[in-house]
Amino acid sequence: MTPTLSSRQRLLRSFTGEPLDRPAVWLMRQAGRYLSGYRAVRAQHGFWDVCKTPALSTQVALEPMALFPLDAAIVFSDILVVPDALGLSVSFSSGGGDGPRVGRPLRARADLDAWQLDDVQARLAFVPRAAAHLRAALPADRGLLGFAGAPFTLLCYTVDGGSSDDFVHTRTLLARDPGLAEAALSTLAAVAADLLCAQFDAGCDVVQLFDTWGGLLTRDDYARFALPALRAITDRVRAHTKGQGKTILFVRGGHHLLPLLGEAGVDGLSLDWRTPWREARTLHPRLTLQGNIDPVALFAGADHVRARVRALLRDMRADDDGRRCIVNLGHGILPGTPEDAVAALVDEVVRGAG
Amino acid sequence: MTPTLSSRQRLLRSFTGEPLDRPAVWLMRQAGRYLSGYRAVRAQHGFWDVCKTPALSTQVALEPMALFPLDAAIVFSDILVVPDALGLSVSFSSGGGDGPRVGRPLRARADLDAWQLDDVQARLAFVPRAAAHLRAALPADRGLLGFAGAPFTLLCYTVDGGSSDDFVHTRTLLARDPGLAEAALSTLAAVAADLLCAQFDAGCDVVQLFDTWGGLLTRDDYARFALPALRAITDRVRAHTKGQGKTILFVRGGHHLLPLLGEAGVDGLSLDWRTPWREARTLHPRLTLQGNIDPVALFAGADHVRARVRALLRDMRADDDGRRCIVNLGHGILPGTPEDAVAALVDEVVRGAG
Repeated sequence: MTPTLSSRQRLLRSFTGEPLDRPAVWLMRQAGRYLSGYRAVRAQHGFWDVCKTPALSTQVALEPMALFPLDAAIVFSDILVVPDALGLSVSFSSGGGDGPRVGRPLRARADLDAWQLDDVQARLAFVPRAAAHLRAALPADRGLLGFAGAPFTLLCYTVDGGSSDDFVHTRTLLARDPGLAEAALSTLAAVAADLLCAQFDAGCDVVQLFDTWGGLLTRDDYARFALPALRAITDRVRAHTKGQGKTILFVRGGHHLLPLLGEAGVDGLSLDWRTPWREARTLHPRLTLQGNIDPVALFAGADHVRARVRALLRDMRADDDGRRCIVNLGHGILPGTPEDAVAALVDEVVRGAG
Repeated sequence: MTPTLSSRQRLLRSFTGEPLDRPAVWLMRQAGRYLSGYRAVRAQHGFWDVCKTPALSTQVALEPMALFPLDAAIVFSDILVVPDALGLSVSFSSGGGDGPRVGRPLRARADLDAWQLDDVQARLAFVPRAAAHLRAALPADRGLLGFAGAPFTLLCYTVDGGSSDDFVHTRTLLARDPGLAEAALSTLAAVAADLLCAQFDAGCDVVQLFDTWGGLLTRDDYARFALPALRAITDRVRAHTKGQGKTILFVRGGHHLLPLLGEAGVDGLSLDWRTPWREARTLHPRLTLQGNIDPVALFAGADHVRARVRALLRDMRADDDGRRCIVNLGHGILPGTPEDAVAALVDEVVRGAG
């Protein structure tokens, strides 16, 4: 029996392979629109204002920590801070996260040349500032995550100019002008890597890379375009943190990419709800695995949620006694998710895994 | 060297395992918005009018046959004819295929009870009528495909009431009221099966089932909900056509489901562009495989398209000498696709595979 760990120890030990008393638990978008407190803040303040005002970003990041015994908080920010800081004027049409628009889509070399690289980290300084403010407000025994968009997903928004079903412009660019795509990916990777390093310096324990649209690529294209940019980030983070800063990669809809993801150089993989846990474990015995409850399960009542958690915990224990495992959703929590379902999920992990 | 086959022989032989002179080729949405003739017809006529007027549906279905040496035409219709015929008043906000709305979303048993099953095939009779009209107008040596939506995908539109990123209402229904979901799937399967049988009776050689949203489901949910409904269809088609009517299943984003799809009872699988061909062949040595060029490749110039076709033909020849293979895209052709790229694709199959 492993002695009870603090939340932060539990999160950090998920990456060492040491025994855990139970898996750590946090939820993608745990500070999102499903919470009444978040909606109240957003009724008063624009999305960017919340991100850039430490008192507000800390308030919304702490709300789920007060409601549920989650093991880690995550900095309140958005993956599109990077294109915005490059001068691309990202705006959100309504709500946080919905319908982003990018002011100057990347279609030709001149668009890339116009990216504002001077002082880009100064324009991103509000992110590590939010992280430091949150770290100071968070109990010392809770974990803290930072994050950034994966380069290919950032390229998608940058080239298509907003969200899209298929990101035709982005994927066409890979085929028509691979050199331009690689140059843009390389720049996005460098900026994202520095942003992650700054979040570690501000007190984050772990960072996650969100590759929301990586699953649109074939294996060949992912290997050629997405992986080298991810590798540039993980190499830089490893050097900057002397190997202490741990990285997790989430690829939405990336089942076909699973055999490749070890090459990203990350310490952990956050699994999409459709990726069978045991299959990922077989392919990646040494990586930390995180996930992967379907966020829709939270709409089906507490009993259903608890049963799903128990099945996941069984899968986690089946290999290597539940080491290198973190409980999470298989995609971000959905607006409208009942708070009591979230409470049931976290409670089942905390009490059911003993 | 296999003697030259007619297009229709080639299509039919794709299902027998006999040698082919080259793979047959047709393209999902080959009669779509990328063609100027189609756009001209749609400028004058609503989407449902085109579907329900044999002269118009035949005209648009024949347009790509005149432009490119495709081996098969496909009936001009839409997967949402089924919910519309059930009394759910499907409308399209703009263009063909974009933004469908379903008048009475299925949320409770009373909604299902209100479905109009009496004479539903009479309300669908315009589909086999379009097929018969097209068959008469098409040269006898060309193949003809019919189609229907797969039950789970029809359920998605029926429950969520339109298109969606994640079809939360539909997937929640599976967890909260599986009996209602299964009853609806069973009804949708019965109506779709009859519609496919009617298209065979009208002269179609092969039919395709489109499971556009099946890839949202986990393996467990696909096995529990989607497969039995598919199996009901393929059993019915097999009985009705005395084993002569061949069926193909397309699941978008279904790489994680690939090991299950043999249980659908179909004769062929149409592969998403992200599914590696050789992996599908290894899993399904006896099924006909169709696909799977990324539709975005058509935006990258003729040389790129031709190289992709050659790589696909190599994969097809590598196993079983290219038997049981059909060239297609890995998703529907996109609006804005250059016609000369389509010409290059088809030409490379016709001339390059000799």
